[in-house]
Amino acid sequence: MPHMMDDFPLLMSTLYDRAVRLFPTQEIVSVESDRSRVRTTYGETDDRIRRLAAAMDQRLGLGVGDVVGTFAWNNRRHHELYWATACSGRICHTLNIRLFPEQLRYIIGHAGDRVVFVDPDLVPLLEPIASELPVETFVVMGPDASQVGLPNAIAYEELIDGVEPMSSWPELDERSPMMLCYTSGTTGNPKGVAYTQRSTYLHTISNLANFSITSSDNVLPVVPMFHAAAWGYVFQAVTVGAKLTYPGPDLSPAALVDLFETEKVTFSAGVPTVWLGVQQYLTEHPEADVSSMRAFLCGGSAVPRAMIDWYWKNRGILVQQGWGMTETNPVAAVALLKPHMADWEWERKLDVLETAGLPVPGLQVKIVDDEGNELPWDGEAFGELLIRGPWIAAEYYKDPRSPQSFLDGWLRTGDVAKITPDGYIRITDRAKDLIKSGGEWISSVDLENTLMAHPAVAEATVVGVKHPKWQERPVAFVVLRPGAQATEEELVGFLSDKVAKWWLPDRVFFVEEIPKTGTGKFDKKLVRDRYADVLMERGDG
Amino acid sequence: MPHMMDDFPLLMSTLYDRAVRLFPTQEIVSVESDRSRVRTTYGETDDRIRRLAAAMDQRLGLGVGDVVGTFAWNNRRHHELYWATACSGRICHTLNIRLFPEQLRYIIGHAGDRVVFVDPDLVPLLEPIASELPVETFVVMGPDASQVGLPNAIAYEELIDGVEPMSSWPELDERSPMMLCYTSGTTGNPKGVAYTQRSTYLHTISNLANFSITSSDNVLPVVPMFHAAAWGYVFQAVTVGAKLTYPGPDLSPAALVDLFETEKVTFSAGVPTVWLGVQQYLTEHPEADVSSMRAFLCGGSAVPRAMIDWYWKNRGILVQQGWGMTETNPVAAVALLKPHMADWEWERKLDVLETAGLPVPGLQVKIVDDEGNELPWDGEAFGELLIRGPWIAAEYYKDPRSPQSFLDGWLRTGDVAKITPDGYIRITDRAKDLIKSGGEWISSVDLENTLMAHPAVAEATVVGVKHPKWQERPVAFVVLRPGAQATEEELVGFLSDKVAKWWLPDRVFFVEEIPKTGTGKFDKKLVRDRYADVLMERGDG
Repeated sequence: MPHMMDDFPLLMSTLYDRAVRLFPTQEIVSVESDRSRVRTTYGETDDRIRRLAAAMDQRLGLGVGDVVGTFAWNNRRHHELYWATACSGRICHTLNIRLFPEQLRYIIGHAGDRVVFVDPDLVPLLEPIASELPVETFVVMGPDASQVGLPNAIAYEELIDGVEPMSSWPELDERSPMMLCYTSGTTGNPKGVAYTQRSTYLHTISNLANFSITSSDNVLPVVPMFHAAAWGYVFQAVTVGAKLTYPGPDLSPAALVDLFETEKVTFSAGVPTVWLGVQQYLTEHPEADVSSMRAFLCGGSAVPRAMIDWYWKNRGILVQQGWGMTETNPVAAVALLKPHMADWEWERKLDVLETAGLPVPGLQVKIVDDEGNELPWDGEAFGELLIRGPWIAAEYYKDPRSPQSFLDGWLRTGDVAKITPDGYIRITDRAKDLIKSGGEWISSVDLENTLMAHPAVAEATVVGVKHPKWQERPVAFVVLRPGAQATEEELVGFLSDKVAKWWLPDRVFFVEEIPKTGTGKFDKKLVRDRYADVLMERGDG
Repeated sequence: MPHMMDDFPLLMSTLYDRAVRLFPTQEIVSVESDRSRVRTTYGETDDRIRRLAAAMDQRLGLGVGDVVGTFAWNNRRHHELYWATACSGRICHTLNIRLFPEQLRYIIGHAGDRVVFVDPDLVPLLEPIASELPVETFVVMGPDASQVGLPNAIAYEELIDGVEPMSSWPELDERSPMMLCYTSGTTGNPKGVAYTQRSTYLHTISNLANFSITSSDNVLPVVPMFHAAAWGYVFQAVTVGAKLTYPGPDLSPAALVDLFETEKVTFSAGVPTVWLGVQQYLTEHPEADVSSMRAFLCGGSAVPRAMIDWYWKNRGILVQQGWGMTETNPVAAVALLKPHMADWEWERKLDVLETAGLPVPGLQVKIVDDEGNELPWDGEAFGELLIRGPWIAAEYYKDPRSPQSFLDGWLRTGDVAKITPDGYIRITDRAKDLIKSGGEWISSVDLENTLMAHPAVAEATVVGVKHPKWQERPVAFVVLRPGAQATEEELVGFLSDKVAKWWLPDRVFFVEEIPKTGTGKFDKKLVRDRYADVLMERGDG
């Protein structure tokens, strides 16, 4: 028992118990693996969470600090796993379902997952490698595990059936890890970040004021629960007693808009490609009613200005750009307008809304040059963004590669940024995506966003490729909107009065699709590799 | 330097530095001791705060952990003292200017204040006892200290003049005390509560979502800065970058309404007697424009339902009832409506708004009977309210009287409460103010609130006095509104269909004024003492 108030630990179970006690009838809606929609409440779910936690003790032999893997969509059982592990002191290791088999093998082994919970429709992804994994038990997240080709497989509903619910949670050290998230690194093995009770608690509480989420909201996280804890929305929504809507496996624009309409979703969150797809769908379906939606967070990669503009003008929805990464738990900055901007004209507000935003209270940011010297916040100087704070990783989980990514307790983000005099962070590029042409830097992000403002362009990515004279030159890859037409000359012409002349791409390729990474971002590495010699072959220059 | 994210301490300086960097032009308006109004900004104030912190080092010889007393109104220099001490690791001891000399002597000695900062117009209150105080230096909060009868007196503006500002803050342990607040106990010497960096940080962040205070707000704390850190609003407002308006010495309704109107205040906070006075003033001055005000927090004692009703219906202002005490840092519960109540009719909403509210996320509450057994949340059972959490005191500052007030880490609040099934705390009474008549409890708070709903009643208090047959019986003391009339029989008749027959007061006294404590609450102890034998003398029964 604590005898100083400072001995009272910051535990997720405190936030959880209050929410369940105060909001027992609040709804949780979940689309299941079979696409059925299940409606339940905080109160009913609480009973299942406590039985799940008890079953981990009694039937799976998991102690405090043991690691539990999940391989699942956003649904109610995943929600139960989040809270059962957090409250009972286990560590939830959310496995990205889009990882390659060798990456899965590595991270399951590295984290030491003793049990893996898997959605029924995702079982086939694990079956080929299951026998090689050091996992004791697989739990299939449904009523039945009899037809499953996984060793020691049991069904979730059987696991928790007839178990006496855990009535009170253990008193943990607030520094206990409660979640492991691995970054899908483009080189080498993934690196793990341990979210602790304390860091998650502080991320949750500190972000509430940013989004003004209250118990009147209905939050639908499109961002997967296997990406940086669904950006924290599972924890935030429950803490304030909001309704939650989980979309399950179908993340198509049609399915999302159907949920927005029928469940009256007020707030959502996802990467730009999701919202570009929804934009396209809403354009084709003007009758779709998404008027309940007040705002969504968009992050994970740069948010096109044209998209922010479209949602506000056509649907009255505020696109809030957020910035973060797995290592920042993840939300670290949000583009909020300041009071004196309230009367600004819309285009000037867009200048602010298209930035990565202001750091969240509690965090410290700076930009530094190659020698680590701090640069001014003048909106001109750019350098690597460094960040630290009570929910920012200061090391990787059991990984000797940590020193390269941290500097005196600061996380090196790998993002290159400017900061305006009034504190808005403007990401110029990922350090590795910056294009160096004849010794000068070109921002691929700026070029992409400008291209995506062209009415014929659905998606665009720009990468630097080898060039005999300039070392690197920008090349653009464009997906046109259905039915739209544009030529290479037309797009370059469109850019020519918007960016410096030497920034203009040497080539524009029209493609059916831009390859995406496991987290839904443009896979620039793949594009770069595939087109590495395109300018060398032509001998441009 | 921290190497784990959990090593990054929760310090007020982190919140402060961000706010000053992001909102340098945000305004701070301050009414001075001479009633002049001074306008300044976060940026300008920052320079003064850093010079003040440096002067504490260089000119006052104060080290980290030393105690600095303040004896002052709500004004900009008091604001500077709050932040300079918090950021530089000193302890700010806010002295209640309404304490008796012997209480002041006790707490200054007990806390060990080495320096006391005093407002110019409050100097006469300290002069008679200054020579007996173990204080090294008095700093008069203005430009001049030459005419002051205090030993070793210097002027604030001289103190900070020409000092090199402190450029970076010390790295402190988050458990360092940063503020001392003494409760004005009705018996014995006052007891001190130490607010730490961590507890204040968590109180600040956790309460932001409750009040939805943003950088667009203009916050005017009426609650004195010598009462439980002005209920945290100095810290909350700066953390989000809101405008602050400090009212100085004149807390009359006319002066407050003038500030609300001319500064366009959006949010305020104070005790019920303040708002009853403002209500009276607004009734007499229907032309007063307080339309900028969206809500105010009302707490410190029970908030009359009739007042909540009046502000909403007449001025569109939401009265948010808060509950807390010095020991709870202080805000611990706030009466927020839940989403399903949005469509309720107003009278039913009032049933919720007149409660002490829901516990803030992060806190745990329970009610217990005399043996310490937990009672159900059924809205019927009542017992002492116990509370614990990361900003709830678990001991008094260097005080052997702690054990009586704490139970296994829980604070015994001394309040008697019911909790409704949906978690709203309803304070029945202070334990010591409950009236025990013939073995049955009568709530003085319920009687007072019912009386104050009568149109002729401005203020009412009810106390239990000795009775030859029933041990105690309720007696009411009523202040009538100017020009209004009512008889004892009329008021008892008004009550008779609203409370149980045996609750009806044995006497109603009409008085000019109800004596108030140093914190503006009805001084029931004084009333009880003065009228102790009023029923014995009459021989009623």
